[in-house]
Formats: sequence, C-alpha cells, structure tokens
Amino acid sequence: MPVSLNKSSRTQPFSLKRYLNIRSKKINAALNRYLPKSSTKPKTLHESMRYSVFAGGKRLRPILCMAAAEACGGKADDSLAFGAAVECIHTYSLIHDDLPALDNDDYRRGNKTNHIVFGQGIAVLAGDALLTLAFELANKAPANTRYKSTHFISEIAKTAGHSQLIAGQVADLEGEGKSVSKSQLKYIHERKTSALLTCAVKLGGMAANCTPRQLEALTEFGYNVGLAFQVIDDILDVTQTSKKLGKTAGKDEAAQKATYPSVVGLDNARKIATKLTTKAYDALKPFKGRAIALEAMADYLLKRDH
Amino acid sequence: MPVSLNKSSRTQPFSLKRYLNIRSKKINAALNRYLPKSSTKPKTLHESMRYSVFAGGKRLRPILCMAAAEACGGKADDSLAFGAAVECIHTYSLIHDDLPALDNDDYRRGNKTNHIVFGQGIAVLAGDALLTLAFELANKAPANTRYKSTHFISEIAKTAGHSQLIAGQVADLEGEGKSVSKSQLKYIHERKTSALLTCAVKLGGMAANCTPRQLEALTEFGYNVGLAFQVIDDILDVTQTSKKLGKTAGKDEAAQKATYPSVVGLDNARKIATKLTTKAYDALKPFKGRAIALEAMADYLLKRDH
Repeated sequence: MPVSLNKSSRTQPFSLKRYLNIRSKKINAALNRYLPKSSTKPKTLHESMRYSVFAGGKRLRPILCMAAAEACGGKADDSLAFGAAVECIHTYSLIHDDLPALDNDDYRRGNKTNHIVFGQGIAVLAGDALLTLAFELANKAPANTRYKSTHFISEIAKTAGHSQLIAGQVADLEGEGKSVSKSQLKYIHERKTSALLTCAVKLGGMAANCTPRQLEALTEFGYNVGLAFQVIDDILDVTQTSKKLGKTAGKDEAAQKATYPSVVGLDNARKIATKLTTKAYDALKPFKGRAIALEAMADYLLKRDH
Repeated sequence: MPVSLNKSSRTQPFSLKRYLNIRSKKINAALNRYLPKSSTKPKTLHESMRYSVFAGGKRLRPILCMAAAEACGGKADDSLAFGAAVECIHTYSLIHDDLPALDNDDYRRGNKTNHIVFGQGIAVLAGDALLTLAFELANKAPANTRYKSTHFISEIAKTAGHSQLIAGQVADLEGEGKSVSKSQLKYIHERKTSALLTCAVKLGGMAANCTPRQLEALTEFGYNVGLAFQVIDDILDVTQTSKKLGKTAGKDEAAQKATYPSVVGLDNARKIATKLTTKAYDALKPFKGRAIALEAMADYLLKRDH
C-alpha cells in the first residue's frame, strides 16, 4: 500500500520509517533494473559497479528526490530515473574518494571499499562508468513538463562538475593537515555534500513539473538540509563509535581533516545543525503541508545517531 | 581564409596539412573558451584539466567531427561543442588510463603524464571533471535539426560508458600478460578506440542535420577508420622510436599487451589496416565528393609514421 501524502485522506499518522522502507525498496528495484547485469561482459566491471551501488546505502538522495516530486503533486515513479542518476553520482564519488590517492579508506558502510575488493584500476573505471551511466539515466524528461532533458542534464553536469562536487573534493584534499577557516569548511561541505542533495530535490521537483517558485523553495530546502547533514556527519564522527557508524569513527581527526566540531566546537556545531534544519523546514512553507515527507526527513537527519 | 570544400569553387587542390592546421586552431580556441580558467578556484584542478587537454594532442577526433559536419553540408562551427566534448572524453580516458593502477605511464606525447605532475588524487578528479564537462558541452543541440540534445547526450553516454569505452579499458587491463585471440583484440580496439572516433563523426553529422542514410555512412566510416587507426598505432609501437612517437615505443610488448603485430604478424597487420581504410573510404561514397576532408584524413592516418 503506498504511503498517502494527502493529509485529508490519511487515516493514520505519517510514519517516516514506513515511508523510507517503501521508497528504498522502490529505488533499489529501479537501480537493479538500470545497472548493467553482472552476467554480461565486462563482468568484473559490472560486478564492481553493483558492489558499491548495493553496499547498503540509505538511498537518502533518491528518496529526497521522490519526496520532492510528491511534494509538488507528482508521482514518485516519474522521478525514479533521476533519483537513480543522483545515486550513481553519489556512489561514483565515494568509490573515487575512497582511493588511496584520495581519502584512502578501506571500509565504507561496514564493507570493504571498492578498490580493496576489485583493485584500484577497476575501482577507477567503475566510478567512471557510474558517472557516465548517470547521464544516460537522466537523459529523458517525463512527458508534458516544462522541463526538457537538457534541463536535467545541465543540473547534474553542473552539480557533479569542476565547480561543485569535484571542487569540494579538491578543497578537502588540499585542506588536509592545514588550518581551515569556518568559511573554507563551509565551501567544502556546500560542494561535497549540499550540492548533490540540492540537485536531488530539484530534479524530483522538475520531474513533477514544479513551478519556478517551488523549484526555488526546493533549492533552499536542499541547500540547508544538505549542509545540516554534513555538519551532523562531522559531529557523529567525533561522538559515535565505528560500529555504530559502519565506518572508521574519528577518521576526520586522524586524517587531520577540518570538521565543524574542530573548527567551531561541538556545541556550536550542534547549534548550527539545528539552525540549518529550521531553515530547511521554513523553506517548505509554500508547500502548505504537502511536503510532509521532506519535513520528516529533515527532522530525522538532524536527530539521527549514525 | 576558410578551406573550401566545394569542389567546383576550389581554385587550388585540397591541402590536408592546411585543413588540419586551420581546424586544430579552431578547436584549440574553442577548448580554451570551454575549459574553466586556471585563475579560478579550484586552481589546481583547472590547471590539471588544462594541462592534459593542451598537452599537444592532434585534435583528430574534433577535426573528424567538424569534417563530418562539413561533409553533410553544415558548418564546422555548429559541431565545435561536440568535437570539444569528444576531446574532453578522450583526454579524461588518457588521464585515467595512464594512472599507475592502469597503464602506469609516466609520459604521454613527450610530456609527463597528469598524475606525475599533479599527483594521483588530482589526476583522478581532473579526469572526472573532464568527463562531466563533456556532457555539459554536448547538452545543446543546434537549432532546427532533427536531432535534439537528448540524442547527442545519448550517443556520448553510450560510447563513453560501461559497454564501450570503459569495457575496452577493462578488457585491455584484464588481457595484460595473457594470450589474447584476434577476436578479443578486435573487441578491445573497437571499444577503446573505434567507438569514440565513430561517435565524433556521428555527432558532427548530427550537428549538421544529416539524413539517416548519411548517419549510417558516417558510422561505417568511423568504425573502420577508428579500427585502422588503432591497428596502425600497434604497428608504430613496434616499428618506430620513442622520440618519433612522443611516448615510450615498444611499451605494448614490455607490458605484455596484445597488439595486431603480436597476434597476426606485422605484414598481416599492415594488410588489415589498408583493408579497413579502404572500407572507410568506400563508406563515404554517398557523399559524392563532399567528404574530401574525411577521405584525406583516412589516407593520412594510414600513412602516418607517428
């Protein structure tokens, strides 16, 4: 039974847990259809792509994409390919980021990283293939919307490109071991994390033929919830155990990486995360209660402990 | 003065040297406009992207793209963004291919490879950024053609993706040191080289609003000239010096890589290259003499000594 988002027709309170469960099954099934089969040549590459895509990600970005589509009165299904594209970009960036030449991570979400399992050569190529696949998936606009495929591709290319996602990675790489100011840290987090979350909700809205005003609201929401998400990640890296996180805790500090707690202190970092979440919440006002899933997700992301 | 391609109005014989010179200047100027400036943040990334894009490439792919547009009665300028996109894909694939985990090359076209100059981390990211930029560049179809931006993006995504360009890299990587059959070698060369050359001429034709029949002819031409190009590369690796090639000669043999000379013998490899070039030539018949630049380039590629 699909989750009803129309307040008037809801017979029971909105359950985020149930919503996330249903939506993540939907996106997992879609990714399974979109990803090349492991049985087809080149097998190693396809296995490697699938290994990281199905390594236990929470599907936060594609679910935000679907929730944005629903907030705009559209169907989650119309946004699936775009959510999948964003997940491919996210996964590719993790695979490349984990390489020894970059973050040098052996574990991710409790599993061995791609290059540990498949070797660095295949890991580089699997990342490349996922990035390329994202553009293939996003290359078809739903019928009868004011947004054409060129708008979707442009949004993804700009977000994933040299001035956003990759700029964030570069600044992160170059900032290691150096004293980083709060504004520099914000620059990194905006690009490494916030940009792709913003892209996810924008694409969802566009797939649902959102109005320019709605697109603006989603952009504001995505930016703030994305930045909050990363500030909370920084906090959890300090306060939680590796087991809880599914990755090495305290890694940022060990790698001498700047984080919000290290730059502004733990208490201030918590205050910033709350403030950003409030801003994200406020951005949803124009949806007049239709953005219930987005609201619930912002709240959940703030309060999560892993 | 632009090179005239209309036989009747030509006052002097077609000079390929002059054509290549004028066209490569045009594409270099376009790439300079399209690539992010080295003076903008993140500088290291932008410098790294530019370093490899402007490392002395012959611009074969974008020039083929322009020549295909002209053969279809279009303007070279309409195909520039697509030629540049293909060159970005080509450059990204070289940067990643040169990494220690893949081909481990220190020199390319007589210059140090990207990771030697900028480090592996930045080299991975510069490749990623160029791949992403390619989709941004190719995301606008010329006005009034039967081909929309979605057709251009689809062509590039399929060519650069897991079943073509990257499949070729994987097969190449996995074939090292193993006995490779002629059909396996053809599989690699089709994907690593021929696919992107085919893509270049197809995009050029599409930018010039080519007919389906012309697109078919360009596909046939691209496939054969692309495969011939790689067979000749294999031959030159055996027969020429490093100085002449601008890269380490005999490297394929040293890396125990299968090549046409090693699999079918040098004489047979030469015969195959000639046969493929003839096929490429024959594919151009529907253009009735308008594809003079493409013809001359096929001939030049066969006879080149570096």
